[in-house]
Amino acid sequence: MSERTATRDGGGRERRIREIVATARGKRPRFRDEIVTMAHGAGGKASQTLIEGLLEPAFGSAALAELGDAGAVDAGGAALALTTDSFVVRPIRFPGGSIGELAVNGTVNDLAVSAARPLALTVSLVLEEGLESDALRAEVEAMASAAGAAGVEVVAGDTKVVERGRCDSMYVCTTGLGARDGRASVGTRAIAPGDRVLVSGPVGSHGTAIMLARDDLGLDADVRSDTRSLWPAVDALLDAAGPHLRCMRDATRGGVASALNELARASAVAVTVREREVPVDPPVAAASELLGIDPMYIANEGVMVAFVAPEGADAALAALRASPGGERAAVVGEVADDPPGMVLVETPFGGSRVMDLLAGDPLPRIC
Amino acid sequence: MSERTATRDGGGRERRIREIVATARGKRPRFRDEIVTMAHGAGGKASQTLIEGLLEPAFGSAALAELGDAGAVDAGGAALALTTDSFVVRPIRFPGGSIGELAVNGTVNDLAVSAARPLALTVSLVLEEGLESDALRAEVEAMASAAGAAGVEVVAGDTKVVERGRCDSMYVCTTGLGARDGRASVGTRAIAPGDRVLVSGPVGSHGTAIMLARDDLGLDADVRSDTRSLWPAVDALLDAAGPHLRCMRDATRGGVASALNELARASAVAVTVREREVPVDPPVAAASELLGIDPMYIANEGVMVAFVAPEGADAALAALRASPGGERAAVVGEVADDPPGMVLVETPFGGSRVMDLLAGDPLPRIC
Repeated sequence: MSERTATRDGGGRERRIREIVATARGKRPRFRDEIVTMAHGAGGKASQTLIEGLLEPAFGSAALAELGDAGAVDAGGAALALTTDSFVVRPIRFPGGSIGELAVNGTVNDLAVSAARPLALTVSLVLEEGLESDALRAEVEAMASAAGAAGVEVVAGDTKVVERGRCDSMYVCTTGLGARDGRASVGTRAIAPGDRVLVSGPVGSHGTAIMLARDDLGLDADVRSDTRSLWPAVDALLDAAGPHLRCMRDATRGGVASALNELARASAVAVTVREREVPVDPPVAAASELLGIDPMYIANEGVMVAFVAPEGADAALAALRASPGGERAAVVGEVADDPPGMVLVETPFGGSRVMDLLAGDPLPRIC
Repeated sequence: MSERTATRDGGGRERRIREIVATARGKRPRFRDEIVTMAHGAGGKASQTLIEGLLEPAFGSAALAELGDAGAVDAGGAALALTTDSFVVRPIRFPGGSIGELAVNGTVNDLAVSAARPLALTVSLVLEEGLESDALRAEVEAMASAAGAAGVEVVAGDTKVVERGRCDSMYVCTTGLGARDGRASVGTRAIAPGDRVLVSGPVGSHGTAIMLARDDLGLDADVRSDTRSLWPAVDALLDAAGPHLRCMRDATRGGVASALNELARASAVAVTVREREVPVDPPVAAASELLGIDPMYIANEGVMVAFVAPEGADAALAALRASPGGERAAVVGEVADDPPGMVLVETPFGGSRVMDLLAGDPLPRIC
């Protein structure tokens, strides 16, 4: 695989591989930008540089350096996981969901893909002066409802208000505490050549729904956000294929492409994806083609990628397909050992290309 | 005490007492405002209405309804506490501290006053496009340094970026996980008539430093924020007077006055404060007099109130005074049973007055 692509791509490829290998082997990128740009929040290359070049070295935490979706904490004999996310999505309500539902599900999912059963949430609100109380009430109710559906309790909260024009309606920060599940031992380090790559459902729905909701594109399509708790799907995976489960990641900002790139890089392996196997709903495919954006880069809020050892792949796929929202789960690729840190796509036409991290931010404030 | 004040105040007092008692007995205020105002984030009456009238009923959590600074969570046999806070202070750097240091210490302190040893933090950033990287770097370093000083690890993080004018430099949401300490069983329900009320240090420094830093007042005074971790003081209190410790609260937004009001209300007791016993640094006293703001209502970021049974008060005071920043700790009042839910101040002139929650927000975005 790697040889063939090396031949096909030619040019600066060798240099790029050397760079990626160097990075995968521990050379940190430097954070040298003079100002913060939208790209630093987009989940692509600039985000990675900010995280690996500034935040991780400063905090110097082993849990943070694991690059997982949640940090591991051991307290009083309990194996726990802690994760946090701020939500700044615009608009705050969109087909299929709203910022409150997203904030709860997003944090629940960061625990779930860390194989941690969600236990408790905190909710911190930054509200813009002048926000209509009905809008706030709707989001508080959406959070309560999503928390109830996910079986987690909201145990602490905070509210701040800033002047008009210092926020955009409301921002929500949710933090989740989970109990690490003993049925699997997951992490980027567990990924190994030969592992199968599964996607839990059709990709690109959330980001496409947000773009359409912004209404500045003149498109009309029935696309709804896929926001949902992934814990039931993870729970089923743990039951069906726990010992074979290597790593999971919810494919939010930057989509499946960014999730796979992060994992390939963190585990210094190559990932091969068969594009034709990746499920995409027809309206999403149509809208993304019109918009010129690859659905693999579009954010999801209820889709994850799972790396499973070959002997557990069939059971894992069956478990995902039996989970809510997982009917169209698919095995979409494999792990190879070379070129490390790189994601390669086999196109429907028999060719292959590099599926890199995005440099900019095609879809700001998607979550 | 209560008879005397009842006689002195006259007028609508009886009606007010009935209202307070009704509320203290479980009648929730209703959240009926049509829009969100700055007052909803100020920690006074409007905040209380938002919390008790909207957030608590929606989330329906026993931990949240406790009105503590942190929610109790039991996980895998471990007795834990979880707390969250967003920080939106303006300006982000001020004499004695900055938003990053405040965010870490504020969350550490919410755990500390819940008698929970701080274990781990998460940090979630909302950054404004165009923020200078040096300003971000300084805050990340301030957070790392404060976390190190407080002995907690940052185990997870998140970064979002919003367009210019949709934030004010940066907002920080920190969430803290702590281990509930077995040396005391604290909470609003433990407060009882006869308890002594202690203040851990001079009040009003943080809010005054912020006001002066905004430079729109034309005052010049050497006032620095008191931001610090309260865990060493709490640890000393737990050692010296654990079984006698009833309740602690850090006196942030709304100052000591608001903290005492919340506790009086939540525990349906009366609190009497001797104004002359409350330590205030001379520059803070001078500035607040010029500004016409009572230091009891000014935010602190390293001062707490502690309720201690009479037999533990001397030991508690000695322990606080031996703690860093606690040299001027003082016993400033007592708990009585009547009028429930009310805080009364004995003035230096032998009179008394009600020290109520503030209705508006004299100092927006103080933390």
